[in-house]
Amino acid sequence: MLQQLFSPSVQHTLDLIGIFVFAISGALLAVRKNFDVFGIAVLAEVTALGGGLFRDLVIGAVPPAAFTDLGYFLTPLLAALLVFFLHPQVERIQAGVNVFDAAGLGLFCVSGTIKAYEYGLGLTASAALGLATAVGGGVLRDVLANEVPSLLRWDRDLYAVPAIVGASMVAVCISRDALTPLTSGIAVVAAFVLRLLAMRCHWRAPRAWNRRSTVREEDPSKATA
Amino acid sequence: MLQQLFSPSVQHTLDLIGIFVFAISGALLAVRKNFDVFGIAVLAEVTALGGGLFRDLVIGAVPPAAFTDLGYFLTPLLAALLVFFLHPQVERIQAGVNVFDAAGLGLFCVSGTIKAYEYGLGLTASAALGLATAVGGGVLRDVLANEVPSLLRWDRDLYAVPAIVGASMVAVCISRDALTPLTSGIAVVAAFVLRLLAMRCHWRAPRAWNRRSTVREEDPSKATA
Amino acid sequence: MLQQLFSPSVQHTLDLIGIFVFAISGALLAVRKNFDVFGIAVLAEVTALGGGLFRDLVIGAVPPAAFTDLGYFLTPLLAALLVFFLHPQVERIQAGVNVFDAAGLGLFCVSGTIKAYEYGLGLTASAALGLATAVGGGVLRDVLANEVPSLLRWDRDLYAVPAIVGASMVAVCISRDALTPLTSGIAVVAAFVLRLLAMRCHWRAPRAWNRRSTVREEDPSKATA
Repeated sequence: MLQQLFSPSVQHTLDLIGIFVFAISGALLAVRKNFDVFGIAVLAEVTALGGGLFRDLVIGAVPPAAFTDLGYFLTPLLAALLVFFLHPQVERIQAGVNVFDAAGLGLFCVSGTIKAYEYGLGLTASAALGLATAVGGGVLRDVLANEVPSLLRWDRDLYAVPAIVGASMVAVCISRDALTPLTSGIAVVAAFVLRLLAMRCHWRAPRAWNRRSTVREEDPSKATA
Repeated sequence: MLQQLFSPSVQHTLDLIGIFVFAISGALLAVRKNFDVFGIAVLAEVTALGGGLFRDLVIGAVPPAAFTDLGYFLTPLLAALLVFFLHPQVERIQAGVNVFDAAGLGLFCVSGTIKAYEYGLGLTASAALGLATAVGGGVLRDVLANEVPSLLRWDRDLYAVPAIVGASMVAVCISRDALTPLTSGIAVVAAFVLRLLAMRCHWRAPRAWNRRSTVREEDPSKATA
Repeated sequence: MLQQLFSPSVQHTLDLIGIFVFAISGALLAVRKNFDVFGIAVLAEVTALGGGLFRDLVIGAVPPAAFTDLGYFLTPLLAALLVFFLHPQVERIQAGVNVFDAAGLGLFCVSGTIKAYEYGLGLTASAALGLATAVGGGVLRDVLANEVPSLLRWDRDLYAVPAIVGASMVAVCISRDALTPLTSGIAVVAAFVLRLLAMRCHWRAPRAWNRRSTVREEDPSKATA
């Protein structure tokens, strides 16, 4: 369906751009965690392809696109190489990377939702899987780096909401039979702009009401030390 | 098969109860880890649906039930909302939550084993997958929260053993062609009661014999800092 | 294809040896992390079967071999029992375990690549999945133990490179229609010997060039505490 929305080559180029910028974010985290060159490559691959891989496993699209399209596999390696040699410069343009990452978020939540719907999922499930496509790679990246996923942390700017908005707009368009290149493009842009605004204005999501937990924070690292 | 054991609506209600109480435990951990409202929702979903999702991927039942049944998807969100607004009260009734969690453990290890067997797995593999269904969500919850899975830790009351017992009872019943609503109900109750007893009596599993390791405890967090 | 390379029983025996030694490494980590007997068993299973399970899910070979072959399931339990009772001795022969682990690495990267190719993946994707088969279990082991995967850390001897070499040799042989028991055996031995040399000579991979990051190391454990 998306293939009819955009021409295949346009769609493929958009995918590769999203993969590339996600891979940059994975590789940069690997550099900060002091990983070696293989760790950088692995984290780049996982961040870029993890979300789509999960989606493809869930909808039964095996082998997943990550393993059938050579460009999908090689693009993260290119990003890893770039970060390996140029990481101070890449970090300096972190703001630029964040913009691209926001673009990747917008693209993936929309394309993930459409692909899930094409494989027969319901509208709500498709939107949920579109969200998982967009944020899954970043969660895997953080798990492998042994960090609390930044998706879950309250002290990070909104990341899930823009993807939820984009995926929901697609679902609404599908339900009204109004999915066109224009409307899906609007959904991408909406998610993209919302994420940019969240970063600029430091929008954050609320934590649980009246949080003054009576149960002390658990610290298993001490318990098992 | 289980559909013939219980009426579909009874089975569905039991499933939703199990999903709900597992989601509560995920949402409570998210509150303790200071996650925001989306982190609470994600951890509730993952805890409630992760085990069944893994089972469905392994047996090739795609798309998994978690993405085809809207009730499965919405129930954890309801639990997350409840915890978000009422978490001090939910914590106060932690004992009650633990009882429900034990019920979920019993239900899931039995239904997971039966579903795996229906999809053609052997008896031992079915029981193993039933165990994975029951405990998988909790393991994913702890991994995402960047904690050592409580399933693995020696300083937690027995959790795996009740599920192993329940799953094994189902496997034995199947092998003797004696799986009826009664026998599978007994398996659920056996796992449930064993888990309650383990919590009440603080039963714990032994650690490795003669543990006085000659290899010092590794602490990679320091090595990579 | 591999079935024609080696006789089925030889192939099965090689697989079980690889599974056994990987399980030993998982069980030993569980002992060091102070897990109980079930934690030891779970970590043994995950380490031994995780890589192949991931490969089988990706290529759509469900149910995965880990759940259809009883020997695959029971071998890690045997390893866990052994470590449970004899772990000081097992640790003393750590050097021997490392040699077996290197053998498992060689076997799995070769057999994983061949199986992926048989299921229709391209040569590059097959080699990548062969690599994932060989190292995936160890990554899952470290994630469950809440450690940074040793695969990614710069302060560990080369682990990925030998597997990459073995998998690539198989891919080259397939592309030249030269995959025979001899050539695939050579690939196994090449990966095996490279890993042994890496351990003996402490070969390590480089970290990012000019690493003097301008972004401070993030420490989410403090931020969320």
